[in-house]
Amino acid sequence: MTKIVLLGAGHLAVHFYEQFTACPKVHLIQWYNRSIQKIYFAKEQIKITDQINELEDADLYLLCVKDEAIEPLSEKIKTRGLVVHCAGGISIDQLKGTFRKGVFYPLQSFTKERFLSFDQLPFCVEALEKKDQQLLCEFAKQLGGIPHLIDTEKRAQIHMIAVWVNNFSNHMLDLGNDLSQKHQIPFEMFRPLIEETFQKAMSMGPQKTQTGPALRQDLKTIEKHLDLITDQDIKKLYLNLSTSIQKKHEQ
Amino acid sequence: MTKIVLLGAGHLAVHFYEQFTACPKVHLIQWYNRSIQKIYFAKEQIKITDQINELEDADLYLLCVKDEAIEPLSEKIKTRGLVVHCAGGISIDQLKGTFRKGVFYPLQSFTKERFLSFDQLPFCVEALEKKDQQLLCEFAKQLGGIPHLIDTEKRAQIHMIAVWVNNFSNHMLDLGNDLSQKHQIPFEMFRPLIEETFQKAMSMGPQKTQTGPALRQDLKTIEKHLDLITDQDIKKLYLNLSTSIQKKHEQ
Repeated sequence: MTKIVLLGAGHLAVHFYEQFTACPKVHLIQWYNRSIQKIYFAKEQIKITDQINELEDADLYLLCVKDEAIEPLSEKIKTRGLVVHCAGGISIDQLKGTFRKGVFYPLQSFTKERFLSFDQLPFCVEALEKKDQQLLCEFAKQLGGIPHLIDTEKRAQIHMIAVWVNNFSNHMLDLGNDLSQKHQIPFEMFRPLIEETFQKAMSMGPQKTQTGPALRQDLKTIEKHLDLITDQDIKKLYLNLSTSIQKKHEQ
Repeated sequence: MTKIVLLGAGHLAVHFYEQFTACPKVHLIQWYNRSIQKIYFAKEQIKITDQINELEDADLYLLCVKDEAIEPLSEKIKTRGLVVHCAGGISIDQLKGTFRKGVFYPLQSFTKERFLSFDQLPFCVEALEKKDQQLLCEFAKQLGGIPHLIDTEKRAQIHMIAVWVNNFSNHMLDLGNDLSQKHQIPFEMFRPLIEETFQKAMSMGPQKTQTGPALRQDLKTIEKHLDLITDQDIKKLYLNLSTSIQKKHEQ
């Protein structure tokens, strides 16, 4: 059974805490956070600490902290175990110390209030030593996920692509939501369309499911839509996105 | 039972054909298309014609043709029935003729090869006369949908918003797909993230689910991502979208 120390108290750390305590194959032995208040709620379940030099002996130390905290925190960890960070865009080399090093990056967007299953979730795994790669792959499977051996360079690309498919597509929905509020149209009306958009894109591939005035070079409709948008930045973005669709599909 | 004549053979017309023949409350009596070949497959089920002056008597004539064909086709229709077009961005006034007029616009994205249920689908309904509004609302319900009385101006706004939540968000997935092909990363890895993105946005609202480097003003990560994008247009779009996210959320 993998003995684990969890470090940090952000969205991902809290999700890990919940999953670990529910997973019989995983033994979470300690939870560290700089501020003890944030993890105080767990003190009946598990040892908690705010003292980085009082970490227990474990197989795996999971650093679930902000990108910029990974390096300074890692410098303070004294252990013979495997220390991994969980960040998409950070090199394995930013872990400083004499311990064994690795990365364990779940390709998902976590929100504190929202339960999320790790079932079938891709985990990007990296480690300097082969046995540590195996340990992390095994660990991903114990959580119900799917391990992928991914080096720092490829993980950075994955992190960048995640911005397109998650952050930017969410922003499109967000701007749609704003516009519907402005025009007093219930956003709920768009639910079937939005659900179909994503289901169709994932089942047929998004290249095949592109539709709309930009794709069919329907300048008349594009002009009508631009007339309906009063905010100059949003108008410009509508134009940029339409141009991007046209450019991609004329190739 | 509503007697219907269907006009056109695009994606929407084919979907209507399939739904009408499956729906016991709806009686499709004739299908017209300029080119008979496209609807020839249905000739055992239903009367078909390519002669616009040979339309049968019906309660409802559904024009499911391209935007630019609505006006010229409507001019040729002689009937006492109700003639409606099904386009989001076209005014009811573009129906020319002495017949009763209306609009019946399903808020959904249709693809020929993909079956789609009309269950709970919003239909934007407009008609000059109240009894025709009622007829169209009743018709939407017979199909399993939800009617909304929406005038031409509001329908144009809905059509514009649909571009954001459907066309543009699909384009984000499409660019993500391109980038993952370029970097030899299986796009399938992003499926759980994409599914969660849309489920979360719809359950919590997309304003609350925005995350990522742009939102947290993480310029270091944004620069790293820009370095990974070689195509200058895509790089510029990444920047524009990041700026748009920052602008919206600093308000």
